Amino acid sequence: MAKQENALKELSFQRSDCPLACALDVMGDKWTLLIVRDLFQGKHRFSEFLQSGEDIKTNILTERLKRLGKAGLVKRSQYQDNPPRYEYHLTKTGSNLFPIIESLVKWARIQIPGTRKPRIPNNS
Amino acid sequence: MAKQENALKELSFQRSDCPLACALDVMGDKWTLLIVRDLFQGKHRFSEFLQSGEDIKTNILTERLKRLGKAGLVKRSQYQDNPPRYEYHLTKTGSNLFPIIESLVKWARIQIPGTRKPRIPNNS
Repeated sequence: MAKQENALKELSFQRSDCPLACALDVMGDKWTLLIVRDLFQGKHRFSEFLQSGEDIKTNILTERLKRLGKAGLVKRSQYQDNPPRYEYHLTKTGSNLFPIIESLVKWARIQIPGTRKPRIPNNS
Repeated sequence: MAKQENALKELSFQRSDCPLACALDVMGDKWTLLIVRDLFQGKHRFSEFLQSGEDIKTNILTERLKRLGKAGLVKRSQYQDNPPRYEYHLTKTGSNLFPIIESLVKWARIQIPGTRKPRIPNNS
């Protein structure tokens, strides 16, 4: 836990000690939370993330997975030796992102007509 | 309301009809929600946003305020004629962003030790 906290601290506090600014230092981009969404939906492999509907590019996916790992939000484990292949799973800290995703989804479902029903399992 | 919905639709659906992706099309960056935070804190003028602790650059602030206006989340009104000066206020749709900010703040306060107590009024 202490290690995760340090990792998150390294990525945040880039602008101020405001908790909102620090959260956005970690996940304030168009892609990070979509990967977290995929993880909540049971996707764990690089190829599965690539196949999501938003057409994420491999270099962006690689970089975001590294950042999520560095932040202690995602844990990587090897499932194949030759060539080495990895699976990604949310840590406890990563799982705690669920209410953030939930609030974004709820807002969009009400404010942007035409958005689809979420496929994210209800975690609450 | 219909006009706001259309404006939001124009900015979103850039990648898919997933509500999370659409929300992030609108606010998936490091700055937009910090400006919304400032608006919740009673700041309404360009100079006030500039003075927030994150040292936002004028060109980024100008662009984000335009986007927030285009999305129907913020309304601009002129408070001075010569030179023209404007104030910015959250619309109803913009005010509905509060639970999103709240969830991000709550996560950071728990997961990133050292973040300060939020100055955002409790809107719930």
